[in-house]
Amino acid sequence: MQSAPLFRQFDRVMGLGLCAALLLFAQAHVQADTLPSWNEGPAKQAIIDFVKTTTDQASPNYVPHTARIATFDNDGTLWSEQPLYVQLRFALDRVKTLAPQHPEWKDQEPFASLLKGDVKDTLAGGTKAISEIIMATHAGITTEEFARIVQDWLATAKHPKTERPYTEMVYQPMLELLAYLRANGFKTFIVSGSGIEFMRPWTERVYGIPPEQVVGSSIQTKFELRNGKPALVRLSELNFIDDKAGKPVGINEHIGRRPIAAFGNSDGDRQMLEYTKGGDGERFAMLVLHDDAQHEVAYGPANGLPETQVGTFTQALYDEAKHEGWTVISMKHDWKRVFPFEHR
Amino acid sequence: MQSAPLFRQFDRVMGLGLCAALLLFAQAHVQADTLPSWNEGPAKQAIIDFVKTTTDQASPNYVPHTARIATFDNDGTLWSEQPLYVQLRFALDRVKTLAPQHPEWKDQEPFASLLKGDVKDTLAGGTKAISEIIMATHAGITTEEFARIVQDWLATAKHPKTERPYTEMVYQPMLELLAYLRANGFKTFIVSGSGIEFMRPWTERVYGIPPEQVVGSSIQTKFELRNGKPALVRLSELNFIDDKAGKPVGINEHIGRRPIAAFGNSDGDRQMLEYTKGGDGERFAMLVLHDDAQHEVAYGPANGLPETQVGTFTQALYDEAKHEGWTVISMKHDWKRVFPFEHR
Repeated sequence: MQSAPLFRQFDRVMGLGLCAALLLFAQAHVQADTLPSWNEGPAKQAIIDFVKTTTDQASPNYVPHTARIATFDNDGTLWSEQPLYVQLRFALDRVKTLAPQHPEWKDQEPFASLLKGDVKDTLAGGTKAISEIIMATHAGITTEEFARIVQDWLATAKHPKTERPYTEMVYQPMLELLAYLRANGFKTFIVSGSGIEFMRPWTERVYGIPPEQVVGSSIQTKFELRNGKPALVRLSELNFIDDKAGKPVGINEHIGRRPIAAFGNSDGDRQMLEYTKGGDGERFAMLVLHDDAQHEVAYGPANGLPETQVGTFTQALYDEAKHEGWTVISMKHDWKRVFPFEHR
Repeated sequence: MQSAPLFRQFDRVMGLGLCAALLLFAQAHVQADTLPSWNEGPAKQAIIDFVKTTTDQASPNYVPHTARIATFDNDGTLWSEQPLYVQLRFALDRVKTLAPQHPEWKDQEPFASLLKGDVKDTLAGGTKAISEIIMATHAGITTEEFARIVQDWLATAKHPKTERPYTEMVYQPMLELLAYLRANGFKTFIVSGSGIEFMRPWTERVYGIPPEQVVGSSIQTKFELRNGKPALVRLSELNFIDDKAGKPVGINEHIGRRPIAAFGNSDGDRQMLEYTKGGDGERFAMLVLHDDAQHEVAYGPANGLPETQVGTFTQALYDEAKHEGWTVISMKHDWKRVFPFEHR
């Protein structure tokens, strides 16, 4: 504090240097212990081979640092989407919180079913019903107010089965994969059908992915003065659906480059994986197959299991993956554990 | 190549370490020689004071690394917008290139005026005319084809006055400012009314700003197979206008955080600066005033000069800047030189 400005400058630079050195040793450590929650096998090997061939300057498949873009779906790929998309659970709770201000909801679908706790009937209304619930619960406030509501909800909401906070219902092997890719110079992005502003308040803390690297669905916003301060107010109008063929569109709009690696778990990710694999050079596509009923949930026709309300991994997608050489992860066989809190 | 895998890993990590160390020494050098093309004075001092107070951990105004978001307008703020927005010049040239395939343009405005070389008459058609020209020249091809067309054009196009490539018509003091902010942990973004896909092919090379940190206006795209390959095709439909009240909206959509510093040069940047200053804690807003007729162009009512066809810096904006404590840069007095190729 009392040293001369030049020395303080030098001091800060040296401090940064020390940080960088520590970071590099930490990275070296991560690399020595690559993907510890993954079982040895073709899936783990495919990841490591891809990273090696694209980051080795002597390799014909070498990709410069800045083009190492990896995109991840969120629901069912990075965190659990069962028994219900977390954002839908959030919207359900918001309907309950806001219900006293909306007596008309008691007789009005999809709110009436939701308020009776009948999620199945609510979802029977399809996209239209979900859209109405999202508009009613996510709009009319500023972006900053909405972020606080999401954070407050996540601080207390619990998964109905494990009674853990939703932010703990993330897949440990995928956290390791994110860290491994970043340690090898990849920039990691989320590309999800969920709301972009529902994810941004917590993705940095939970996944190490900052808000500007999150792509998602959105409603429109408007710049205006709120309480005398310039703010963005959320409107009851759809802006963008970041799902299916929307995912490559969202990727292009936000990232402006074709990813070289993409990770998903359902038919909503199909076009993102196709787009990723459609570029020149070495590319990587991976799908997470939910087949571990003991430690999570087993679902999707590709398991020979019935479809659920969310996250459909159809047989057609499975066949395309096999035909196109995409890697399909078996949660049961390829992962040593599913959640960070698990100790087998 | 022949060393054991573990050694190669170690070798790579050490290589990264060496890179990081060199980078840090380079940064220390930049910092020792901060903003060399800026004259000493209140504008330069305001920048340095802001960076010091937001990056010094002992300061009450300290801002964590990840929240150090700085946004820059492009036309007239980072590169010259006179006598015409560069993208409009590009569109004009595209009309000429495509004219043989469109004989109907000869009698159809705004194309007829453009083909006669009458830019003033073309622009008299306002936003509608410009929009028609953009749609006719920017759509119907894939995003990757469009990027190549932009790159090819920039490789040969010359500024009408200096006969330099447009990518050399960038402001040296602003290049130094971008580097200085990044050396201090800021993430720098472009937020421009120009087309996002017109800027992304060259911003990394020219400004060190990667595609994913460019926000701009856009037309819609559609995911489809082109020549059997998954691609995004550009449609003749507007997606988003990133200007005026659209700039805070674009910032929120792409970055998801309120910037702590913003830089512009015209009324199109007003709301971006208001939004930036509207957040809590220390904030910085700056406007570039074009008052150096000798080395660039002097224009805008705030100079007591007439409005031009582009880049209006009105007296009202100037008054707001003074009232709100925004820093106004005089290109004539605050900068030692304007362009990198200039040696005074």
